[in-house]
Amino acid sequence: MTDEFYMDFALKLAQVAEGQTTPNPVVGAVIVKDGEILGFGAHLKAGSPHAEVHALKMAGKRAKGSTVYVTLEPCSHYGKTPPCAMALIQSGVQRVVIASEDPNPLVAGKGISLMRDAGIEVKTGVLKERADALNEAFFHFIQQNKPFVSLKQAITLDGKIAAQTGFGEQITGSEVQQDVHNDREKYDAILVGIGTVLTDNPSLTNRLGKTKKQPIRIILDTHLTMPYDKKVITDGQAPTWIFTGSEAAPEKMASFNQPHVEIIQLSQPNIDVTELLTELGKRQVMKLYVEGGKTVNASFLKSRYVNQLITYVAPKIVGGNKAVPMFADLDVGQMTDAFEIKFKHVEMVGEDLKITSVLK
Amino acid sequence: MTDEFYMDFALKLAQVAEGQTTPNPVVGAVIVKDGEILGFGAHLKAGSPHAEVHALKMAGKRAKGSTVYVTLEPCSHYGKTPPCAMALIQSGVQRVVIASEDPNPLVAGKGISLMRDAGIEVKTGVLKERADALNEAFFHFIQQNKPFVSLKQAITLDGKIAAQTGFGEQITGSEVQQDVHNDREKYDAILVGIGTVLTDNPSLTNRLGKTKKQPIRIILDTHLTMPYDKKVITDGQAPTWIFTGSEAAPEKMASFNQPHVEIIQLSQPNIDVTELLTELGKRQVMKLYVEGGKTVNASFLKSRYVNQLITYVAPKIVGGNKAVPMFADLDVGQMTDAFEIKFKHVEMVGEDLKITSVLK
Repeated sequence: MTDEFYMDFALKLAQVAEGQTTPNPVVGAVIVKDGEILGFGAHLKAGSPHAEVHALKMAGKRAKGSTVYVTLEPCSHYGKTPPCAMALIQSGVQRVVIASEDPNPLVAGKGISLMRDAGIEVKTGVLKERADALNEAFFHFIQQNKPFVSLKQAITLDGKIAAQTGFGEQITGSEVQQDVHNDREKYDAILVGIGTVLTDNPSLTNRLGKTKKQPIRIILDTHLTMPYDKKVITDGQAPTWIFTGSEAAPEKMASFNQPHVEIIQLSQPNIDVTELLTELGKRQVMKLYVEGGKTVNASFLKSRYVNQLITYVAPKIVGGNKAVPMFADLDVGQMTDAFEIKFKHVEMVGEDLKITSVLK
Repeated sequence: MTDEFYMDFALKLAQVAEGQTTPNPVVGAVIVKDGEILGFGAHLKAGSPHAEVHALKMAGKRAKGSTVYVTLEPCSHYGKTPPCAMALIQSGVQRVVIASEDPNPLVAGKGISLMRDAGIEVKTGVLKERADALNEAFFHFIQQNKPFVSLKQAITLDGKIAAQTGFGEQITGSEVQQDVHNDREKYDAILVGIGTVLTDNPSLTNRLGKTKKQPIRIILDTHLTMPYDKKVITDGQAPTWIFTGSEAAPEKMASFNQPHVEIIQLSQPNIDVTELLTELGKRQVMKLYVEGGKTVNASFLKSRYVNQLITYVAPKIVGGNKAVPMFADLDVGQMTDAFEIKFKHVEMVGEDLKITSVLK
């Protein structure tokens, strides 16, 4: 179990940088010889050294003959930094233990072959499941060129996001608010519809999270009805990207001149989720946290571009069918046509329930 | 921890008879001397001997000087059987360990006093929480003279019990069906509305449970529109009680002559939940399992006579507000007026989620 012990440490190092390496994965590395840790490192930011490089630097010449634990297959290509597989070979490392293999089909296995050809003993798959989960969004992004999408909602037990007459009422408790802010800082961007901005005027910032990292704020506003006095426009706390349909008025588009506000017009009269996500992929948004109302949620679900549903269930019952449902109409006529999901994880957050699920 | 060890065994004995002792509680007893078990017993059926009596009989004369573990305070009154406290005294028992005290305020503590006055050492509260939970329904019944009510529902994640056009469609998986049948046998009666009978024609029997115990089938049918060809009328598998409002037609009432079918007319034009439960209490229904649709569920929730909500959540999403909600209109205008509940227990049952909650 020695390999698992050191890989566990490498994974903890990787985890520390969650949310700050986009569009790169999080990676941790540990160098060990004769039961002694000689060095360790993590990839902290795109463009900065890889985890293996930090660890090799810490170990210095003692890395010769060592075992290196790395949570993701060392790279084999010249990017912003030289290939790590080469650095490990040149340092005289004897053995390399890897958790996840490179998800990019074009380079998968190349780092491993390079090291094996140089006589390094390579072992793969140690704590692979945890490592894969940690870079789930990166793996999705590198293969699809679109962000990993989490749909977050707060509902009553009977599936309502607001009561008959009420909007903007807090449904869940303060522990959920904390949990949401903790989650926000793991994402590159938060997305809402213009309806949420009009009724709630949210700041969409991370105020309670552990870091002060501020995700980009994305507003879907087909007809560009955004007023000028909303917090996302006036507060300058984080970038605000407003996506409009093709028929938004050019004069209104030109009227936003705050440096943190950008208007992005898509090609269709109505916002198409595929086009939106393709554009966000180009802009290096790797992880997207959707906090929409029923309309935004329904359009994402219908597009099936939903990697994860995060549903907070409050211990409340509203009843009837006049209250606001969690999804607008989805054209489901019979139960056999329902969208099928799979519950992955359930936990209590304060008095509320947090259900994480995936589309089947 | 010796006391806990033997009380745990006594609780397991009590549990075996769950659902077959109405209107009595379940009780288990174990007699121990010098680390040797001399006898044990459980109360199996109203009118039959109490747990202590069975255990004393098994132990015989060796009970003298022993310790008796009993999950509920021994009775002190002459009912269908002589008081157990007296039997324990007469057997020369040295020590009595009790989990739950008698919930009936008129007799609580009398059995204990009787034994203490006779020189028996009495210890109470050992594994009390488990023992109390086991007789939760009995404790409620003895104090309220109304059945303990569990409201069971199967919904999609977005709170629908059926899709737009579909009725009678199975939402949850086969493991839930098994779980429901296991639960049914712990109840004295199952209740549905006439709507469920008309659309689904259910038999409402326990077909998959471990025992073959069949709860009474209760149908709420205000205007007595029950057709003669439904399973609950024709199959004779279990008693069927049909409750009607005061304006049900007398000739129709007289037309049901199956021996297992009984028509019970209440005093109001619409069925009043309080009157219904009072009548069921008189008829010694201690535990009621409500498997209603939106209307029955709403009337129970509004009456607040709900001791427990058992909600199976299927990994499905229907969307919109045209599908059938889990509760009909509850007159909740704002989120602050919502019915508040507390989640007590959450578990996976197959691919579905089972949430047990109580009204706050």
